[in-house]
Amino acid sequence: MSVAATDTFFRSRWVERPPAVSELDPDQLPTGFRGAGVACGIKSSGELDVGLLACDSSEATSAARFTRNRVVAAPVAVSRRAELSRLRAVVVNSGNANVSNGEAGVAVAQSMASATAQGLGIEVAKVGVASTGVIGLGLERSPVLAGIEAALAALSARGDSFARAILTTDRWPKRASLRVALSAGDVVLAAQAKGGGMISPSFATMLCFVETDAAVEAHLLGRLLDSAIERSFERISVDGQLSTNDSVFAIAGGASGVAIAAGSDDELAFARALDALLRQLALEIVSDGEGATRVARLEVQGPIGATEPVARAVADSPLVKCALFGGDPNWGRILQAAGQALPDAGTPRFDVAIEGVTVAQEANAVPLGDAERGRLEQVMRLPEVEMRLSLGDGEGSSEVFFCDLGHEYVRINAEYS
Amino acid sequence: MSVAATDTFFRSRWVERPPAVSELDPDQLPTGFRGAGVACGIKSSGELDVGLLACDSSEATSAARFTRNRVVAAPVAVSRRAELSRLRAVVVNSGNANVSNGEAGVAVAQSMASATAQGLGIEVAKVGVASTGVIGLGLERSPVLAGIEAALAALSARGDSFARAILTTDRWPKRASLRVALSAGDVVLAAQAKGGGMISPSFATMLCFVETDAAVEAHLLGRLLDSAIERSFERISVDGQLSTNDSVFAIAGGASGVAIAAGSDDELAFARALDALLRQLALEIVSDGEGATRVARLEVQGPIGATEPVARAVADSPLVKCALFGGDPNWGRILQAAGQALPDAGTPRFDVAIEGVTVAQEANAVPLGDAERGRLEQVMRLPEVEMRLSLGDGEGSSEVFFCDLGHEYVRINAEYS
Repeated sequence: MSVAATDTFFRSRWVERPPAVSELDPDQLPTGFRGAGVACGIKSSGELDVGLLACDSSEATSAARFTRNRVVAAPVAVSRRAELSRLRAVVVNSGNANVSNGEAGVAVAQSMASATAQGLGIEVAKVGVASTGVIGLGLERSPVLAGIEAALAALSARGDSFARAILTTDRWPKRASLRVALSAGDVVLAAQAKGGGMISPSFATMLCFVETDAAVEAHLLGRLLDSAIERSFERISVDGQLSTNDSVFAIAGGASGVAIAAGSDDELAFARALDALLRQLALEIVSDGEGATRVARLEVQGPIGATEPVARAVADSPLVKCALFGGDPNWGRILQAAGQALPDAGTPRFDVAIEGVTVAQEANAVPLGDAERGRLEQVMRLPEVEMRLSLGDGEGSSEVFFCDLGHEYVRINAEYS
Repeated sequence: MSVAATDTFFRSRWVERPPAVSELDPDQLPTGFRGAGVACGIKSSGELDVGLLACDSSEATSAARFTRNRVVAAPVAVSRRAELSRLRAVVVNSGNANVSNGEAGVAVAQSMASATAQGLGIEVAKVGVASTGVIGLGLERSPVLAGIEAALAALSARGDSFARAILTTDRWPKRASLRVALSAGDVVLAAQAKGGGMISPSFATMLCFVETDAAVEAHLLGRLLDSAIERSFERISVDGQLSTNDSVFAIAGGASGVAIAAGSDDELAFARALDALLRQLALEIVSDGEGATRVARLEVQGPIGATEPVARAVADSPLVKCALFGGDPNWGRILQAAGQALPDAGTPRFDVAIEGVTVAQEANAVPLGDAERGRLEQVMRLPEVEMRLSLGDGEGSSEVFFCDLGHEYVRINAEYS
């Protein structure tokens, strides 16, 4: 079933639905996939905290990407040793990150993979593991294993409980299911993601699970995943903090009978769908950043090598983020953060525009008329604000999406552990 | 007059009063110096917003250091062109940073210097200018010049109104006046500083004015200032944001008749006094960081080259800062931030201790007894918390002081402009 256009998944003005894509019920998993989410008591609130995702096909291919943090969670260490191009299942717990728990933590992550493999009748090397939650808190084995048993019994073709079981401080589940029209027929492409805090522009800065019933060779799937991540999860920041647990898993089951050949038009159409899917999910992670009320897109243009550090410095500046929270077009803080991050060479221009209103030219204030002032005031109150910063001539261009920093972020993170 | 030990300026446990130093009335300027602060209407609150500091001696020497931000305020640009080793006066306004105001802003900064020079009967090249406040807001010439005229008329041997006239979001004035016993007699060393937000560990991340009646050759004064800054303003972070206006000015008038020779024991004693003075002022800036309730000192030990980026990443992490605000010993966030900043080479140990309680060893949680848990809970509620992070063997060592991130920071910075 398709959803009404007014209720589209592609809510951000920065993501377009590709022509070959139509939306399905967001909880509909692709043929051959089953999912479940249950509560096993890790979260004292009683909310869902164990999720299981499985592909029925023994021919499934996969790709996985993990955090670049030097400190990694036990499940990341365990997953890295799995057959990452032949995964058939992923098991996840939320509420406990299983980081810094020593050998005991690694053993629990391994048990999670073993129990899942045993229940599904597949090799343990074909199971990925992910965790998200508090760091440095022992994860007890028995409740999780009981949860996995319950999840195995609850597996179904719908992804709703799985999408909820992976959440921590997220306010809403983030998922979509898309039909992609290819030359040999339709395929289904679905994904579930979670964000919260510790979200920084570095690949896989959260958990995301991608499923498709297309047949995609593992190497191609990895390449498609890399370039989609590059334009989505790599471009977002909630708080500039790279997590210890970030993981993206993609599994292609092939049940549609449609194979995607490298270099074909179908690859392009599928890549565009994957791109739009992950980009919208990334934007949802930003707009649901801890306490976020507003998302900004900053485009920095200028010399190659200069735009990237400047874009990230502005996106991570607590002063810029607090101004965004207050709906304050305080572009001086954009200049300040840019000036801090800029390499020494060359003379930057520093032109700033907010929603098309040029507020600074060559680092100096542009006098604004009443109309422009009114427009600025109005656009700064909207849920999505676009900003452009030019550092002068050059072929470099970097975009970054970031949310504001408000009282809720402080409340959540002062009271978390 | 000396103040009671209970009311000492050296309040932080991380700064010791050097043996040669005794405290004077904090508003007593050294002989030969006069100061004033007046209100000219830049601040709509009616608070003091123009400050003037002058040295009577034509033999005065000086040193000045400025922000490394690529975007700098007009007063910084104007001051850089002054005779920085022969300054005799500094004029300051607060409430308006005079940044991004183009040629008009530079002209106002120049007028401020000219009016001061004319009023004092000195060359304009011997006047430094500083501003602090909002970026990108035109600074009107006439009120400031009227303020300077009033300040010229109000000059006195006391620094209290000057210390207040340089403040923005600071909750209290930061200043001290010290007597330093040297071999040829006593000298007086005083300073006034202001902080607020946009405070990052990079030299001169605020405004600070240092005066002494010792005679110090300009080159030596610059060297002493550099090493004192290195151990004070270089080591603090409120929000990781390098300001466009940061300036430190030091003027030595010589009225005491005591000259400090390079390489002498007196140089050492004077250097230690300057060190302690700027270090305590830096700590006051952190503890008065916007909305700050608590200050942490983090010492990172390990391979050279690794300790510095790790110390700054932890100090600037909003997650670590929110945990500090909540009194939460959430050391997992220290590991996460350290792991994000750490260079790729080598295998780090990641041992963490809070106030002597080892909470993590080799990146894993250390089981704590009730006594240790109780102690952690208690020390995390104190105004000063000490943390140590070891990355393993190595000669590197970095310390950084940072404050927490609380609701007041958000309130102040969402409503600022």
